[in-house]
Amino acid sequence: MPLYHAPTTDFQFLLKDWLGLDAHYEKLGISDFDSELANEIIAQGAKFALDVVAPLNREGDEEGCTLKDGSITTPKGFADAYQEYIANGWNAMLGTAEYDGQDLPYTMAVPVHEMLNAANLSWRLTTMLTESATLAVTKHASKELKDIYLAKLISGEWTGTMNLTEPHAGTDLSLLSTKAEPQGDGSYKVTGNKIFITAGDHDWSSNVIHLVLARLPDAPKGVKGISLFLVPKFLPDASNEPGEANSLSVGSIEHKMGIKASPTCVMNFDGATGYLVGEENQGLACMFTMMNDARFQVGLQGLGAAEASYQGALTYARERVQSRAPQGIQNPEGKADPIVFQPDVARMLLTQKSLIEGCRALSLFYAKFMDVEKLGEGQEKEDADKILQFLTPICKAFMTDMGLETTSLGVQVFGGHGFIREWGMEQLMRDVRIAMLYEGTNGIQALDLIGRKLTRDGGQMMEATYNAFNALVSDIQDSEAKGLAQGILDDWRASSADCLGMDATTAAAAACDYLAYSAYSLIGVLWYSMADKAQASGNAVLAASKVKTRDFYMERIFVRRDAHKAAYKAGPESTLAISGNEFDYL
Amino acid sequence: MPLYHAPTTDFQFLLKDWLGLDAHYEKLGISDFDSELANEIIAQGAKFALDVVAPLNREGDEEGCTLKDGSITTPKGFADAYQEYIANGWNAMLGTAEYDGQDLPYTMAVPVHEMLNAANLSWRLTTMLTESATLAVTKHASKELKDIYLAKLISGEWTGTMNLTEPHAGTDLSLLSTKAEPQGDGSYKVTGNKIFITAGDHDWSSNVIHLVLARLPDAPKGVKGISLFLVPKFLPDASNEPGEANSLSVGSIEHKMGIKASPTCVMNFDGATGYLVGEENQGLACMFTMMNDARFQVGLQGLGAAEASYQGALTYARERVQSRAPQGIQNPEGKADPIVFQPDVARMLLTQKSLIEGCRALSLFYAKFMDVEKLGEGQEKEDADKILQFLTPICKAFMTDMGLETTSLGVQVFGGHGFIREWGMEQLMRDVRIAMLYEGTNGIQALDLIGRKLTRDGGQMMEATYNAFNALVSDIQDSEAKGLAQGILDDWRASSADCLGMDATTAAAAACDYLAYSAYSLIGVLWYSMADKAQASGNAVLAASKVKTRDFYMERIFVRRDAHKAAYKAGPESTLAISGNEFDYL
Repeated sequence: MPLYHAPTTDFQFLLKDWLGLDAHYEKLGISDFDSELANEIIAQGAKFALDVVAPLNREGDEEGCTLKDGSITTPKGFADAYQEYIANGWNAMLGTAEYDGQDLPYTMAVPVHEMLNAANLSWRLTTMLTESATLAVTKHASKELKDIYLAKLISGEWTGTMNLTEPHAGTDLSLLSTKAEPQGDGSYKVTGNKIFITAGDHDWSSNVIHLVLARLPDAPKGVKGISLFLVPKFLPDASNEPGEANSLSVGSIEHKMGIKASPTCVMNFDGATGYLVGEENQGLACMFTMMNDARFQVGLQGLGAAEASYQGALTYARERVQSRAPQGIQNPEGKADPIVFQPDVARMLLTQKSLIEGCRALSLFYAKFMDVEKLGEGQEKEDADKILQFLTPICKAFMTDMGLETTSLGVQVFGGHGFIREWGMEQLMRDVRIAMLYEGTNGIQALDLIGRKLTRDGGQMMEATYNAFNALVSDIQDSEAKGLAQGILDDWRASSADCLGMDATTAAAAACDYLAYSAYSLIGVLWYSMADKAQASGNAVLAASKVKTRDFYMERIFVRRDAHKAAYKAGPESTLAISGNEFDYL
Repeated sequence: MPLYHAPTTDFQFLLKDWLGLDAHYEKLGISDFDSELANEIIAQGAKFALDVVAPLNREGDEEGCTLKDGSITTPKGFADAYQEYIANGWNAMLGTAEYDGQDLPYTMAVPVHEMLNAANLSWRLTTMLTESATLAVTKHASKELKDIYLAKLISGEWTGTMNLTEPHAGTDLSLLSTKAEPQGDGSYKVTGNKIFITAGDHDWSSNVIHLVLARLPDAPKGVKGISLFLVPKFLPDASNEPGEANSLSVGSIEHKMGIKASPTCVMNFDGATGYLVGEENQGLACMFTMMNDARFQVGLQGLGAAEASYQGALTYARERVQSRAPQGIQNPEGKADPIVFQPDVARMLLTQKSLIEGCRALSLFYAKFMDVEKLGEGQEKEDADKILQFLTPICKAFMTDMGLETTSLGVQVFGGHGFIREWGMEQLMRDVRIAMLYEGTNGIQALDLIGRKLTRDGGQMMEATYNAFNALVSDIQDSEAKGLAQGILDDWRASSADCLGMDATTAAAAACDYLAYSAYSLIGVLWYSMADKAQASGNAVLAASKVKTRDFYMERIFVRRDAHKAAYKAGPESTLAISGNEFDYL
């Protein structure tokens, strides 16, 4: 497979020309950051992703992880790449300066994260979860815990995990049974079994810091009785180095469809020493701090894999010579034309491109509001929080569904070769498939969107989101494009408002189609906005490309919107009518 | 993963009640066959698929195939299962009685083939290609060749392969360069390299009969200079047993995303002795005999994998207890309800079910016309040929696209467990992915449909297909349903007629969306027809299920039709506008 190259031109256009990064930073009072620095960080991140991480991807998939004598070995080169990553400060990009982090804006970090995902989903996953765990500790842990753990999590000297799922408690965390007993000295003994724990153990760092959901002895039933605990693999000694081994172990590692280079562990906690993070019985709220962050990051996995697949397919389509193009001979010296000229291949490539660039715009739009939520004030900060809450499930679910669709198209462009492992196209499809499942399945994201984000506050998050997109529409110079974008956005707002009165059953049956309807609508608005701004970018190739790709999106992808709308508006009756042996006549 | 069970109730309903199997056989003059015998064959086929083939599926995926000293070993149990298969006569179902075949109607064999695919795609593939090769030899080989090879291919004592693809000639067979030199004794020396050869070698049988496309020395360029040769692994001796080894060998085997238990070979022919099948330079036409058969059979792979995934997902959804259903408590004794009651899970299951049962109806409708094409006479036979030609690319492409969608939904219903190998859900997705690629990619199927089948004869194949579906509509008792089905069918005919005037470029850009539009339309008609006939079946559960599933299909799946129609009607401009570095700004 051809080596991945960084989509830096698109990043630069989106950040500087489309989002107005310099004005954005100035408004937030961080004018020491600017689009020049962003370009530099993206260029360095691209170099790291390309030179260090991408070359490990294929071999990592073949080699996988091994568990021996309780310890996990990751594929050759993975641990070294991690040491280089943390030595170069990449792990600290988003960490708080109070504990030696760089406090970079999200708008600078998110492009780097997309590229790391494109280069190697398995490798990136451990650092992604460390960042999420770091965020939860930063926001919810006591100063005492922070002083011990936070600098090492931010630097990456120690990595972090999320321990939520148990064999009988996945989507439904109210069923979880891991226990935490107070020891009178401020610590707790944590006992239980957790499954699907990414990087529960590995050979990258001297310690692993587990964030574990568990119940106190007298906790209320259900989700209101869950607390969050920090449980280190090794208890820090007096000099804050890994000391005594904690009472926890890896039970086994999973054999999976993809991300084989990422160790997915069964973790056994056997009276392990842990420390409360946040208030008692508020564990779910604390965990959601990291869950929401992780959900957006999982969306970026979909985007990264999609981009890698697109690049592979495009390179192949330009090189593979097969048949003549119907519109005329393109390669008169050869016996046949490159397949990139075949209309059906172009259709597949443009389906990838229009979805990828639409989702990239969405992810950077989201990152901009993460900056505002972190650094802004007053109404703007409040609005940003609403917008992020609303867009999180859309980013997670749509960008990962899109990840599967586009990586499958990448396989298809390669024909039979796409199915052969050595080309790497099928690995992208296998690796990205997990992203539709973890951090809440895409069905759960859809329920979160329609059942909580849309309806819980009577539509306020939706209205805040509407306003944010409406600001983009207002800025469109071309009046025809502006009118079309406004039409899409207003249709979406009106349809969303119609959903406010739905009962829980109707909403649940509508959820996935409403989410898809929303995503195709909002990305349509982003395409009108991007194509418009591209005209003033000074890059004629990019300007032409954006207009043409917008047209393709509107003519051939956006049309799915109405199918999803019709599907969810049909109501829940036909979904719920069937039962019992009507499913299978047995 | 729960063991596969055969969907016999649905087969019986579709064959007897819906297709009117007894009248169909009587009309064809084969009234010694009837629906009772069909039931018996399906029951025995189900038993074989369940008891013998399905248990090998998971281990086969883990073990894979190995090439050592030029010979391939397939996974444990595979060869024994094959011996049992041929001993029980399954391989001979469709073979001509002239060479000891059973000459069964396709309407009896196709359900068995679906079940074999559901049980084990890898295992079935070798017998599937042997059947296709057998068909090509039956239709095109000389009596001399038939006398040597046909009985052994039909019994399964020897297996068959298709050797088309070369490294630089896949979709575009005009580029193939394998050569065949006449030896003056009626034989030829075949020299060249072929790739992606399924079951090019294995440990199942004493001989492998390769059908190889190659060029004669003075052959015209392009596809008009391709001839078909029969090249045995071992040259039969005087007593027609495998004798001298031919000059051919396995170069390597491929490492693939799925169907790992099926050996995919690089074949080297080094002056191997071969025999002409059919006329000189008519190889492609001969090969298409087996290609069309294989294309329909690949569609059945999509269907089989989909059914297996649906059954797995349904069983899991009934057993997995997680959260309460929004429509009310379903399991008052437990802390949560089975997820089958979650509307979004029901949506996924019904998406599977409505697509699967729609495609099963399509496959048996197709099988009925295969019977007519084989046994009928005059106009009916001619029409059947047209209908089959038209429906072949739809069956191949739509049923395999559907196979990927539904197996991915099966993974999704399992949540994180769907990604773990031991459950088997991810294997179905990996295995079925190849079906969108081989025997002509789905893009090639779509070009075949719109560029050849629809337009080449000015729409006659389409009209014959219209008439066949119209006969179903005419038979619908419920007048509302009849009107709706007629509306769908007439919309499809009119839209198809609109495509007749398209130039080649416009057609190529429209192809995939036109195929999908056609499939969703025609399956909509099948649903109205099935649901109507189910009312008179005497099975109240099935009758209720068919009506409810039809409603779900119409409300939530059929609506995709309009998106595909809008997409292809947009024309080729936006697909072809982009070029050069507008694809990637490099």
